[in-house]
Amino acid sequence: MFDLSYEDGVAMLRLNRPEMRNAVPMDGWRRIAELAREAGQRARLLLIKGSRAAFCAGADISEFSILQTHPEMRVRFREAMREAFDTIRDLSIPTIAIIEGPCFGAGVALALACDLRLAGPEAMFAITPAKMGISYPQEDVHALVSLVGRSNAARLLFGGLTIDCDEAARIGLADLPPNRDIERLLSAIIANSAASISALKRGIALAEAGVRSSAEQDESFDALLGSDDFHARLAALRSKR
Amino acid sequence: MFDLSYEDGVAMLRLNRPEMRNAVPMDGWRRIAELAREAGQRARLLLIKGSRAAFCAGADISEFSILQTHPEMRVRFREAMREAFDTIRDLSIPTIAIIEGPCFGAGVALALACDLRLAGPEAMFAITPAKMGISYPQEDVHALVSLVGRSNAARLLFGGLTIDCDEAARIGLADLPPNRDIERLLSAIIANSAASISALKRGIALAEAGVRSSAEQDESFDALLGSDDFHARLAALRSKR
Amino acid sequence: MFDLSYEDGVAMLRLNRPEMRNAVPMDGWRRIAELAREAGQRARLLLIKGSRAAFCAGADISEFSILQTHPEMRVRFREAMREAFDTIRDLSIPTIAIIEGPCFGAGVALALACDLRLAGPEAMFAITPAKMGISYPQEDVHALVSLVGRSNAARLLFGGLTIDCDEAARIGLADLPPNRDIERLLSAIIANSAASISALKRGIALAEAGVRSSAEQDESFDALLGSDDFHARLAALRSKR
Repeated sequence: MFDLSYEDGVAMLRLNRPEMRNAVPMDGWRRIAELAREAGQRARLLLIKGSRAAFCAGADISEFSILQTHPEMRVRFREAMREAFDTIRDLSIPTIAIIEGPCFGAGVALALACDLRLAGPEAMFAITPAKMGISYPQEDVHALVSLVGRSNAARLLFGGLTIDCDEAARIGLADLPPNRDIERLLSAIIANSAASISALKRGIALAEAGVRSSAEQDESFDALLGSDDFHARLAALRSKR
Repeated sequence: MFDLSYEDGVAMLRLNRPEMRNAVPMDGWRRIAELAREAGQRARLLLIKGSRAAFCAGADISEFSILQTHPEMRVRFREAMREAFDTIRDLSIPTIAIIEGPCFGAGVALALACDLRLAGPEAMFAITPAKMGISYPQEDVHALVSLVGRSNAARLLFGGLTIDCDEAARIGLADLPPNRDIERLLSAIIANSAASISALKRGIALAEAGVRSSAEQDESFDALLGSDDFHARLAALRSKR
Repeated sequence: MFDLSYEDGVAMLRLNRPEMRNAVPMDGWRRIAELAREAGQRARLLLIKGSRAAFCAGADISEFSILQTHPEMRVRFREAMREAFDTIRDLSIPTIAIIEGPCFGAGVALALACDLRLAGPEAMFAITPAKMGISYPQEDVHALVSLVGRSNAARLLFGGLTIDCDEAARIGLADLPPNRDIERLLSAIIANSAASISALKRGIALAEAGVRSSAEQDESFDALLGSDDFHARLAALRSKR
């Protein structure tokens, strides 16, 4: 259902359940959390990818009947999704969803948990709980509002309509690197300092939580200015000139 | 001055004072609040609309002379606007401004109070207090910054220049549904679950207020997963396949 | 290194160190703070400008070797930048960066400290600490996230790639006035009420800090409605009709 592989320090978590358009069953969410945790230990960049047929169709609704009569399964479902998304969100390495096909429902929440959502021309997005008569986890509504603003969030959540790659990029749900050159962006991230990126990622998370000043971030800023890596990069830069 | 009508569960509040380009007099704000409250009880969607000649030219400045000598009227004016905008903002049903012509000054605050601002090609926007030597209510500055960011807010508020529909859409002040198909978006919202939309709207408001996790929203999420409506929609979906 | 001039109430702070592409040395940041403070006293609008060759290449890295062995210089560097950016940010007059060429590293933080960043067609932006193995001040990460969102912030900070004017405008890092007519926007701001703009700027700063309602802003709103300037502008407007 999921394949995790490594190449040159980059972990690739591939959703691979084509017969269900990569819909994730109840137990799949915990598995995603486990694999993300492993990648966070071993790699310096995590890519999450489906295929052109589907990034992820969302939660597997074929398992939903049991929710009507088993209230405890509703909590379990919600908590399993939360564990997956929060584990990804809290990794200290950069996390990037590569979206080349349909990305629906909880699949959007999976993409929202990443730092970036790089979308190919055939990407499509829809957030569909209101079509089904259900809701969307508050943490994921929060991530959505933070990314696209309250209007676009209302439009996507109330209407549940499908939007394409360009529209997703226009409102900030998808990211398009300059010239849509995904490889160049990935190479740049890998060539850059992992310590820098980790500090900057922490800074973005703090900023998102409303923290403008931070003694911890000041210390990390000062420490990196004294690091051997910085002075080696500085020397290399100068010798090039 | 205002017409409130209902059709198929949709309330339409029409600003209808063409000789004043739908400028709202002092007492009009309270009336808007009353009508919005009524619509919130009786309908499942509220549209606020002017005409192509004007969505709303703002507050009626022909009444403003009295403000110079009657300080208590300044407070009354501010509080009356607040009541209108906060009543709309706090409705549990979706609220949509349909903007087909000029939308100026307090007319923008009226539009900002809605969940969505669907703009037609002849829509125009300007926020003009700095031209007049006055200010803009803090709550509406807050709504503006939240929607378009601090730079665009500064540009619109400091300069007071008029922007067109495309520019408003580019910065997030106006929403354009896919293919500018307003009817399709409205139909989708009406076909979707009112209980879902109400929970999602509450989630967006909480997110805007910085709330990422909420026991109340978790409960509502779990409850909808057990609802008859959800399982009926699920069964219908399956039988279609 | 810096030229401060005045014309018709507008202060222009020009970065003028072409041989270093306007890179700012350690002591330059304090000087920027001093000059900005002076402009805030004497002018009603502050423009910060470089040239087409460079807006600002960032901090002057030719001085960075000393940071390896002198920890106290790291703190001094960080605090000097902070003083420059916070002084500009806290001025009560509008502040506008005019960016006509490359704007890199700490140069972006300088631009972020302004209310607006008006970019010409040859503007380019890159935030490069991860390339060097260092970090970015938390306050500036916060300003960046607030302006372009967490995804674009992650993309710019993790990759360090250069983006052009159109891309910067698309994500909100640069502002383009209607028809790219910078002069018209500046004229409009200058023709508008300075008291209004000061109150509105305060409102935007409060909104950014999450303040939706404010007794102080209510008082200022009411006071301006009774001001002589407002009633003079109102009378002028009526006599024109």
